[in-house]
Amino acid sequence: MATENLSAIVYGKNDLRLENRPIPEPGPNEVLLRMGQVGICGSDVSYLTKLAIGHFIVKSPMVLGHESAGTVVKCGEKVKHLKKGDRVAIEPGVPCRMCDLCKAGRYNLCQDVYFCATPPDDGNLCRYYKHAADFCFKLPDNVSLEEGALCEPMSVGVHACRRAGVFLGSSVLICGAGPIGLVNLLVAKAMGAAKVCITDLVENRLNLAKELGADHTLLVKSGSPEELAKQVEAAMGGCVDITIECCGAEPSICMGIYATKSGGVMVIIGHGPAEVKMPIINAATREVDIRGVFRYANCYPATLEMIASGKVNVKRLITHRFKLEESHQAFETARTGAGGAVKVMISCE
Amino acid sequence: MATENLSAIVYGKNDLRLENRPIPEPGPNEVLLRMGQVGICGSDVSYLTKLAIGHFIVKSPMVLGHESAGTVVKCGEKVKHLKKGDRVAIEPGVPCRMCDLCKAGRYNLCQDVYFCATPPDDGNLCRYYKHAADFCFKLPDNVSLEEGALCEPMSVGVHACRRAGVFLGSSVLICGAGPIGLVNLLVAKAMGAAKVCITDLVENRLNLAKELGADHTLLVKSGSPEELAKQVEAAMGGCVDITIECCGAEPSICMGIYATKSGGVMVIIGHGPAEVKMPIINAATREVDIRGVFRYANCYPATLEMIASGKVNVKRLITHRFKLEESHQAFETARTGAGGAVKVMISCE
Amino acid sequence: MATENLSAIVYGKNDLRLENRPIPEPGPNEVLLRMGQVGICGSDVSYLTKLAIGHFIVKSPMVLGHESAGTVVKCGEKVKHLKKGDRVAIEPGVPCRMCDLCKAGRYNLCQDVYFCATPPDDGNLCRYYKHAADFCFKLPDNVSLEEGALCEPMSVGVHACRRAGVFLGSSVLICGAGPIGLVNLLVAKAMGAAKVCITDLVENRLNLAKELGADHTLLVKSGSPEELAKQVEAAMGGCVDITIECCGAEPSICMGIYATKSGGVMVIIGHGPAEVKMPIINAATREVDIRGVFRYANCYPATLEMIASGKVNVKRLITHRFKLEESHQAFETARTGAGGAVKVMISCE
Amino acid sequence: MATENLSAIVYGKNDLRLENRPIPEPGPNEVLLRMGQVGICGSDVSYLTKLAIGHFIVKSPMVLGHESAGTVVKCGEKVKHLKKGDRVAIEPGVPCRMCDLCKAGRYNLCQDVYFCATPPDDGNLCRYYKHAADFCFKLPDNVSLEEGALCEPMSVGVHACRRAGVFLGSSVLICGAGPIGLVNLLVAKAMGAAKVCITDLVENRLNLAKELGADHTLLVKSGSPEELAKQVEAAMGGCVDITIECCGAEPSICMGIYATKSGGVMVIIGHGPAEVKMPIINAATREVDIRGVFRYANCYPATLEMIASGKVNVKRLITHRFKLEESHQAFETARTGAGGAVKVMISCE
Repeated sequence: MATENLSAIVYGKNDLRLENRPIPEPGPNEVLLRMGQVGICGSDVSYLTKLAIGHFIVKSPMVLGHESAGTVVKCGEKVKHLKKGDRVAIEPGVPCRMCDLCKAGRYNLCQDVYFCATPPDDGNLCRYYKHAADFCFKLPDNVSLEEGALCEPMSVGVHACRRAGVFLGSSVLICGAGPIGLVNLLVAKAMGAAKVCITDLVENRLNLAKELGADHTLLVKSGSPEELAKQVEAAMGGCVDITIECCGAEPSICMGIYATKSGGVMVIIGHGPAEVKMPIINAATREVDIRGVFRYANCYPATLEMIASGKVNVKRLITHRFKLEESHQAFETARTGAGGAVKVMISCE
Repeated sequence: MATENLSAIVYGKNDLRLENRPIPEPGPNEVLLRMGQVGICGSDVSYLTKLAIGHFIVKSPMVLGHESAGTVVKCGEKVKHLKKGDRVAIEPGVPCRMCDLCKAGRYNLCQDVYFCATPPDDGNLCRYYKHAADFCFKLPDNVSLEEGALCEPMSVGVHACRRAGVFLGSSVLICGAGPIGLVNLLVAKAMGAAKVCITDLVENRLNLAKELGADHTLLVKSGSPEELAKQVEAAMGGCVDITIECCGAEPSICMGIYATKSGGVMVIIGHGPAEVKMPIINAATREVDIRGVFRYANCYPATLEMIASGKVNVKRLITHRFKLEESHQAFETARTGAGGAVKVMISCE
Repeated sequence: MATENLSAIVYGKNDLRLENRPIPEPGPNEVLLRMGQVGICGSDVSYLTKLAIGHFIVKSPMVLGHESAGTVVKCGEKVKHLKKGDRVAIEPGVPCRMCDLCKAGRYNLCQDVYFCATPPDDGNLCRYYKHAADFCFKLPDNVSLEEGALCEPMSVGVHACRRAGVFLGSSVLICGAGPIGLVNLLVAKAMGAAKVCITDLVENRLNLAKELGADHTLLVKSGSPEELAKQVEAAMGGCVDITIECCGAEPSICMGIYATKSGGVMVIIGHGPAEVKMPIINAATREVDIRGVFRYANCYPATLEMIASGKVNVKRLITHRFKLEESHQAFETARTGAGGAVKVMISCE
Repeated sequence: MATENLSAIVYGKNDLRLENRPIPEPGPNEVLLRMGQVGICGSDVSYLTKLAIGHFIVKSPMVLGHESAGTVVKCGEKVKHLKKGDRVAIEPGVPCRMCDLCKAGRYNLCQDVYFCATPPDDGNLCRYYKHAADFCFKLPDNVSLEEGALCEPMSVGVHACRRAGVFLGSSVLICGAGPIGLVNLLVAKAMGAAKVCITDLVENRLNLAKELGADHTLLVKSGSPEELAKQVEAAMGGCVDITIECCGAEPSICMGIYATKSGGVMVIIGHGPAEVKMPIINAATREVDIRGVFRYANCYPATLEMIASGKVNVKRLITHRFKLEESHQAFETARTGAGGAVKVMISCE
């Protein structure tokens, strides 16, 4: 077996280094993985360029990467459902399993989670990585490692659409056509949403959204939130059942409230300013629920089934491919969005 | 305007007569409809051949038909959302709107409902029929009257899949591949179910199910419920999340319990014997919920969206077409299942 | 029978007049009521003193009053569940019964509701009033007309606690110890909440809250929302499961978010400024749901059961009693809060 | 520290022995407990007298006892929330924490659970016992060890009432007035149920139920399930919202279905014959959901809050007290029900 473990490590602002780290030894309920594909997330870019997201701060060198899939190299002694050679999607957060939230099935809210590439926890943009076996999901033969890696962002969409209560026939507004907006589009459609309207400030993002199945697109140029909401209503034939806010900007959140039906739901995934001025009376008196979405819990199995059954073509999200050795270029592409980059994938094989 | 209203009326066992009835006058919140298409349901056949289903008994002549769509001919004075010429799907049950169940959104359980072709209420297999305007749903241009009529059985599937909690990635067992089993198959898939296994005693029904998207089929020949459940498990790679029971036979209900995962759900749509011997301890200790399904509530809008958006090809269910004047033949075809009859449609135009 | 119908009518700002109006005739599904007791709500005071609440504006003379109970004098021909002489609590909003929200059981969000003393609809602070019979709930012998009238504000609490998901053992923060805060306190306790902390700016309101069962009280003097939330945590032994916001002020809403557990719920009943600056990222990343509460739906039966079974002592809320002829004094007391006024009750008998 | 660990062990049918076992050493996330109070459950009696419940069979000597509370003697190195001297209620089932059901918050359905005194797992009717620290809940000063032990049966009631959806104002039928029926009575009332009717074959059990708050009791002597349901309706003023079936007998389950409102719920806790003939069409067409209840999950905190806040007087359930050395007598009392035994408590101190 190899003895080197090339890893992409952030050392400081825009200081990304490729270094060899020791190959870890899996515990009894863990597996050692030969990493396959790792996608770059906006959070990876933020940690590299700003060393921080909110109160999460990179204080010591940290391996990046958490959208990932790999191949089992070694199994801990208690692992039963996996064996050497199995290809798996890696759910990157392993919670404490002991707090009230873990026990209640909401482990995404666990305060004591190990989450890849959220400081201080190392990610898995490297050659070898060990992980809790029960957070590794075996890929069927017809699912590639790239698709396995995409289970991560797709799971954000599954969790969001589940919290939003997307249902057969739902009309859905998605604010923001970046990767998270697009995965929500794909998931909402796979869950039976009848009509999806998606907004963005950038036209070519909307073009991709259309190609992926958006029924309506709205290029946001100017106008108050109320006016923009009217445009959504006009396009959709009325207010929407559900708004999925993926950009976090104040005007977008406000528009989302105005555009949602009485008794509807707005979920908030996007992170903008910490405080936002919101038309809360409008939401409250119409019982438009506002629900946050933080990562995901219990979503990987459904996500994988969705991909395996061919309901969604997730691969279309991948616009660029690099090798682990080319990580600098990969991050530069992801950072600038050059060449219409949506999802940049790095092969660690 | 016409003055004759040819209507298909059951007078006694197997005594179906075509007679002219008066054209009704719509009330302030009603519309008068020129009937378009009416599908024959198993219940119509039962009322014609047995004059009864359970404690519902035909005691005086009753117009048959409740799977229907038509065109608005006249609007009551308070009707706002429809106008003359609109083509509509007709939700056939109009509840009392005043009991606790109506107020709580479960109007399908209202004791005081008017339901087409459930004695003593007349159905709408006729030329002209009046109905509560808010239970008429305007068809988009791309939805035909036949598809509008199919909203009725499809809504049974939507209600069942909603009560069952079908979700993205769900594995689903459907017992019985008759019309209700097939609509559940279509709806479950449209809601994101990953894998559906469907059972029947008759092979050619299963062939149609396959064509409509079933991932696995099980021809039930012999074997105990436990053994059959093992076959389902083998095909599906484990117990299913959800069982949708559409035949009502005791062995099928028992198999459904055994085949469902701990924490899963079985919904019961099929009506067999009034009393069934069930492995209730098995269900209870594994918290497999058993939920009944009676008709539907608040399902027409989602059903219509699903059809309009092209998510399902409901027309494939129609195997035979007749004119109102040919009602005797139509019922004979539906009764015998001759020629592989699944859904027999009657045109009243 | 009487021919005069003395009614308390708002004609302009602070222009309340007692005038005789005709006695109405009940329709087939209505009852005519001899009004018994009517409580004064903050909204009644607002309409009298400002002629408006939000976009609801008094444009023509309007009878005030909607927290009410009375005695059936006459029944419409189709009314079955009531008879002359029955004492009833009157649910003051009668919805359209035909829109999607009504059909789905969320009739409190109906756009077409008749709601007593919300312009332009007349209230029932008068001698005789007709109402939809199914929105009149017969009082058991051990429930007084005063308690029947209090079903209205209590139902706000029932709806809020239901939407909040108050459960056995819940820890609950209530912001604001006015009448709505107090009814939520009573209801939350009746539903099994283990600990309730209530806040206010005024000490003697907190004293009453304590007497009614509050486990902790917090007199809000100064401090940032975060600091106040810390005080709640200290008192309650941690963040609360549920916050019920009854005052609508920006700092209070913000404190509510900070004080609520990850995965918890904040419901908003209080109406302050239309727009509020909120720490939405904090709420979203901890999945603290924010749910509005508008009036109530399907709550009167539970409220009445709660009162009838003696689980709550609602009468303690009544601090002042007047006759219909003394309406000016009654409103002055309610407006100024003189003499520690909480709930001012007017007898119309 | 002591070196002896007297333990009550079942060796064969009616062969209960008191023997010293080694004192276990707690793991890093475990605590060692000095056992305080242990209640005898019907399952303990069954294992002693029949060596089996369903497919759980005592094949080798097993320590009995699982309704328990004790005092922390030693903490594993990673335990933070407990310290030596803390008195705790012990939730007796420690699940695998890794399967889908554990992750989804339904750990009571985990196939890989360690559950005290369910073969082959030893219970804690002994002097010293080690347990997962996160399944030990610190008792407030005002809660005794006896009350801590009663958290176990009370949690069955909390889980059942939660699954049943007991709500403020609910009308509830409880079938069976044994210990489980009685805890459901206490819990349902604490959650705001307005009226509870409880049935039994034995009059003095009903007397205790009355004392504990039952509004109506029904002594079942003869009569068909339909007739008995009519008696419940007569007593309760209509069908009930919820039935909690605690005896498992076929006629009782059937009565429960008939007595429950359309749209209501019946939960099944009682274990009778494996197969039961049920009026399933009646349940299905009225959408009376049938939900199983197996042990409990995430209920101890609410249960403890309920007891600590004085909402229920659980101690009233204890009718007999013994020392560990008197275990034979204790089991004999529990087995025969001599002296009106409801809950027999054994002190291990």
